[in-house]
This record gives sequence, structure tokens and C-alpha cells, in this order.
Amino acid sequence: MGVDQRASDALAPIPGIRIGAAKAGIRQREREDLAVFELAPGTQTAAVFTRNAFVAAPVEVARRHLGAAAPRYLLINSGNANAGNGAAGVAAVEACLNAMADAVGCRADQILPFSTGVIGEPLPVERIQEALPAAFESMDSDGWAAAARAILTTDTRTKGISLVAEELEVPMRITGIAKGSGMIRPDMATMLAFIATDAAWEPDALRQALRKAVGDSFNCITVDGDTSTNDACVAMATGCASMAPITLADGQRYRYAAAALKQVCQDLALAIVRDGEGASKLVGIRVASGRSTKECRAVAETVAHSPLVKTALFAADPNWGRIVAAVGRAPLEGLDIECVSVFLEGVCVFERGRCPEAYDEAAAARVMSADEFTIRVELNRGAATATMYTCDLSYDYVRINAEYRS
Amino acid sequence: MGVDQRASDALAPIPGIRIGAAKAGIRQREREDLAVFELAPGTQTAAVFTRNAFVAAPVEVARRHLGAAAPRYLLINSGNANAGNGAAGVAAVEACLNAMADAVGCRADQILPFSTGVIGEPLPVERIQEALPAAFESMDSDGWAAAARAILTTDTRTKGISLVAEELEVPMRITGIAKGSGMIRPDMATMLAFIATDAAWEPDALRQALRKAVGDSFNCITVDGDTSTNDACVAMATGCASMAPITLADGQRYRYAAAALKQVCQDLALAIVRDGEGASKLVGIRVASGRSTKECRAVAETVAHSPLVKTALFAADPNWGRIVAAVGRAPLEGLDIECVSVFLEGVCVFERGRCPEAYDEAAAARVMSADEFTIRVELNRGAATATMYTCDLSYDYVRINAEYRS
Repeated sequence: MGVDQRASDALAPIPGIRIGAAKAGIRQREREDLAVFELAPGTQTAAVFTRNAFVAAPVEVARRHLGAAAPRYLLINSGNANAGNGAAGVAAVEACLNAMADAVGCRADQILPFSTGVIGEPLPVERIQEALPAAFESMDSDGWAAAARAILTTDTRTKGISLVAEELEVPMRITGIAKGSGMIRPDMATMLAFIATDAAWEPDALRQALRKAVGDSFNCITVDGDTSTNDACVAMATGCASMAPITLADGQRYRYAAAALKQVCQDLALAIVRDGEGASKLVGIRVASGRSTKECRAVAETVAHSPLVKTALFAADPNWGRIVAAVGRAPLEGLDIECVSVFLEGVCVFERGRCPEAYDEAAAARVMSADEFTIRVELNRGAATATMYTCDLSYDYVRINAEYRS
Repeated sequence: MGVDQRASDALAPIPGIRIGAAKAGIRQREREDLAVFELAPGTQTAAVFTRNAFVAAPVEVARRHLGAAAPRYLLINSGNANAGNGAAGVAAVEACLNAMADAVGCRADQILPFSTGVIGEPLPVERIQEALPAAFESMDSDGWAAAARAILTTDTRTKGISLVAEELEVPMRITGIAKGSGMIRPDMATMLAFIATDAAWEPDALRQALRKAVGDSFNCITVDGDTSTNDACVAMATGCASMAPITLADGQRYRYAAAALKQVCQDLALAIVRDGEGASKLVGIRVASGRSTKECRAVAETVAHSPLVKTALFAADPNWGRIVAAVGRAPLEGLDIECVSVFLEGVCVFERGRCPEAYDEAAAARVMSADEFTIRVELNRGAATATMYTCDLSYDYVRINAEYRS
């Protein structure tokens, strides 16, 4: 039901949402680095933020505003995270929001701010204020692609997807965009995601569906194990489709709508890993037959974060010993490694404590040379499963992160 | 009291220990890759092994033998880890030990085996057996430097230290060697360490002192967060010095001896980080004024493992935002980031939620450009401290680990 999530030029407008973008010159001249969203009155908005104790000023303000009023606007900038700036950081956000509120005629607490970029540099408030009129002028229901570009930092490509879920009484349109490339890990990544639908949602239902969708998507990906001060995922339901609001009591109807939201989050999450800093591969780590989802997830995370596994992925080297060593150091009770099996797609590389006699290294190397594949770990001691997505660790990861500020 | 731990040619013999080395051609021709240790009768031996659930065959056998008999010999090879080989791996170790037992006239369970190198390739038993006579022939009390070379894998230099502790009734000599470079992390690293002293120790005292020394040294270093299947640290006390055995009841005497053992472990541990795969810097992460050692350690580990911090170390970029973001995602209860301060040596880079007004980036960059320095994090909510040592993440880390098997 979706379009290719990389084809963000094909992103479908969502009735009730207008988007503008402008060049504020925050970090680089000559690129869009500011985006504004206008939400139709009555839009329900839910958001999930970073769990890092070190949160950026815009996250602090956005959380407060979300609790105080129904958002009518989003203000998003890239190039500067406005994190680690103390009280001055909060004052900077408020100065931007006040200017915007005056210009559009709303209260400042009806605007949610989002920033991404370098930590610890003062937000260039004046440049943002000066660029606001151009952003408003460009506001259009077709602004998704421009916003997808404006929110990028070290990303190499835009990330967006549009879906139409047909299972409800009227078609439910959803469009989402995201940014994120480094600093990605469970419990929210350095990422921003903005998702809108024309469906009508009860606030509780939207919040719960978003939380679940994020848990099954953005919290299942890792690029480098780091988290950010600015992560946020926002879902906006304009209710412009003529339908009764989706509620938690709706049963099947809620499940259909939540599944569509999750689908968008998962596609955006995988797009982030595919564009992981320096990444050339998207690799699923599927851990099965564990005692609990938690233990499967612990194994999947340990493998997904292992620099030795990630450099082997980069080299397309079926060095299964590194995978098994990562499984072996996962924090599990009484794991008997003799019972564990490991597969590269269909190729068994480890069982009964060793590499099988019939192991075909050439076949394993062929699997590893693909752009996308799955490492499957069978714990053989239960019925639970969990999947994480990771990418390889390459020279370019080091280059990008060693040169980011220069 | 020590010599430079990099000057392993100056390693002092330990009365009661003879060491031989030979070229078995296990992975590379023309280098020593086999070492044998002969321990005088009556030598007390203690060992700490990897906590990875995936353990190599030699670890399994060494643990069993250590429980069964007083070791008289060690047999060590590099180039092949003999891990992930199932029952055939154990049979391979036993074949080597049986040949050695026949040659030297002891029981096989009086020999402890150790292997390090590639996981999952069959141990070349015959080549090892064939090289044993040459190893025995070269046995000498001066063999430490040769053994230090023979145990290396991706290491770029040998690691050894000799100390003489003068605080006891007679001088206590200690010499130790280690290998390890990648796959290093808390809870034992991919490392082997062999430490001998001529002091006499009660077994319990030696075991406890070794366990404590390893906890304060090898378990405080990280290169890439990975652990190995083969890690082991062995302490051998020959008792050739004319002294009564050191016991746990000895008080000050035990503390002096244990401190000397710890000193050797710490020097070897730092030598391993200095030689971390691709590392150009040794960086201490000192976390102070925490509520407990455990929480200080959790913060230190999170910072020490962060790929974003480690690439900033490589770039000598005082990107303190990455350090604070790593502190912020450490698994701590109710951390108020406003109370946290961060210093690069003497330069404060973060306090009261922001970079100080008086911050001097040039001074911070000077600190970061040194080969060795300390990042200090003050949690300002208790009296506990912990220190971890890490290195930078460079292009060479990726190169070494992407090419290791080729």
C-alpha cells in the first residue's frame, strides 16, 4: 500500500496540513534549514521525545507546550540542536516562537519547536526570525518534500513515505518524513519524525498508537548506539477525513489505523538505518525461540551494537565467531551456547557449539555481499522473538564523525 | 618501582619460571606463535577467565585442569582461538596436551592451555605438536620477551612489565606479559595475561588478590565494547623467594603484595588500551561525586563506549556535547544534567546545563591533542568514583577489523 519511501518527491499532501521551508543560513548558506507546519484547527497531536537526561531546550519547551495547548504550528530547524545552552537556549527558542506567534496570530504555546544539528552552539535567533516570512510565504499542502530536505543534517538523502490505508470506512491518508543518520539507538534516536494523517483520532488512542509504533520501529534500530538530546517523533491527526474519531474502544478499527501508523514508522526507521552514517548495508538481527521478548531483544541489541560484527558486515566477511561471541556476552541467565544456532539468511553458520560440517563459506559470503539481509539467532529455549536493524561500520562512519564540526 | 612496560626486552626473569617459544606456522610462517611456560614444583597458580557464555575449548580445558591439579606447564598459541569448534576443539586441545605431557613427563591435567586468534578454524594440532621440541629446547628463564612476542595477534607491540616490590621482608619480583588489542571491554577482554612472581602465596590469597587486581585493571578498559571467548589472566607464584607464604590474614603484608600485583595488571591493561586497534590516544574517563561506584562506572562505561565520543577523540575535537549526551543516556536514576560538570583535564566544558561563558575552546583542543588525557565527569550527588580507560575510534580500527581474516 506504500510508495517507495525514498521517493520523497512523491509524498502526498494531507488535508489540514500546510508546510513551508526557507533558507535561514543557520549552519550552511544555500540550503533550506527551516520548516514550518500549519495544522488545521482541531488537529490532535501526540509526540514521543528522547529519554536522554540531557535534553535540548526545544524538547523542554515542546513538552511543556504540548501539555498546555493544542498545537497549531511546528517550527523546525536543522544545523543547530540548541542543546547544552542552559537558560539562554530556552530563551532563544522562546524568542523564535514569540516572533512566529506574532506573525501568524496565535499564542506561542500553540507552537512546538524542534531543532537538530550541532550541540552547544547558540541558536542564531535573528537569522531564524528573518527567515520566517519566506517560510510562511512558501506554505503549501505540497511542502513535504521541501520539509524533508530542510530537516536533514548528516543524512545523505531525504526520508519520506505516503500510505493510504483502505481498511477503514474512508481511506486514511498518512504521510511521514524523518531525518536521522548518526546517534541512532533504541530508546529514541537522533532523529526527528513528523507524521500526519487526515484521519480523526481520539487523543488517547493516538498517543497509545504512536507509543507502540515508535517502540516497534525507531526503538528497534541502531546505527552507533548513541542517543541524542533532541529526538522527537510527532503524529498529527487533522480529522479532515469525514469519519468518526478512532478510539481505543474501536477494536478492529483501531488496530487497522494503528497498523498503518506503525507501517509508516517502520518504513521511516529502516530508511534511517539505510542512511546510517557511512552505512552500505541494512542488516536485520532476528532473535527467535527465546524465553522472553526482553531477552531476545538483549541478544539482538548486543549483536547489533558490536563494532566487531559491524566491521565484519562492512567487509562482507562471514566471520560468524564475532556474532556468536556477541550472543555469548549478552546479559542472559544461563545461556547454553551449545543450544544456539546462527543463520545468515538460509545458511547455518553455527550449531551445537561449532560451525556445521556442511558449512558453505562461499554461500555465506554471497549472503553478506547483499545490501540487505538478515542474521537469525535461534536461542532454542522458548517462543519469544525480537528483531533489531543495524548497519555496517565503515571508514566513512569515522570520517563523518571525525570531521562533523570542521 | 617499575620499568617502562613497553620495554619488554628488559623483562626480568622470575626464579622458578622457564619459558620457551617456537614458530609453529599456525597462521603466519616466520613468526613465533607458540609459547610454553614451565613452573617450578610447588608453584601456586590462580586464573580469571572470560565471562562470555561462548567459551573456547582451551578455556574449558584450562578451567577443568586448574580444578584438578597444580599446573606445572602452560601451553599458549596465537593465530587460532580454537573457539567454536565444538567437541573437535576440545579433542584438539587434548591431543596437544597429551603430546606435551609425554614429552616432558607430566600428566596432561598439569598443563593449562591458552589460545588466541581467529575463531572457528580447526586448531592445526600437528603443526603445534611438531613445534613443541623447538619450544622446549629454547626454554630459559629469560624467555619472557619471546613469549610476549609469540602471544600477539592484531597487537602492534609487545606488552610486558617487571616490578620489584620492596615493602616485604624480601624483595618480591613480578614480571607480567599480556596481549590484547581489539575485543576489549569490562568483564574481561580479548586478552591473555601471564604474570609470575617469586613470592610465596597461599592459594586463597593469590586467588583473591588476582580477582581484585583484574577488577581494577583489565575490567576497567575498553577498546570496542566486545568481549572474547578466550580471555584469561593467570598469576603464578613460584615461592622461590625465601619467605613465608602471603595469606589473607596477613594484613599489611597481604596489602603490599596485592598492590604490587595490581600495579602489574594496571600497567598491562593500559598498555593494551594504548595499543587498541587503530588507537592513537589513551583516555581516562574519571567519574566522580556519584551516589555509588556502580553508577559512576555505568557513566564511565557509557562515555568510554560511545562511538561518537571515540571519533571525537580521534579528531581531537572538544565536542563536549557528545560527552554530555553519553552521560545523559547512562542508565542512572533521576540524573539532573544541570548538576553535572565535565572537564577535559583542567578545562571546564560543561556546567549548569551549558558550556561556561569563560570556556576556552583553544585550551580544550590543546588537551585533546595530547596522546593521553583525562575526561572528568562530576555528578555532584555523592562521594563515589570510578575510572575507565578507552581509546579513540579511527579509520585504522575499521581497516584492521574489516581485513582481519583476509
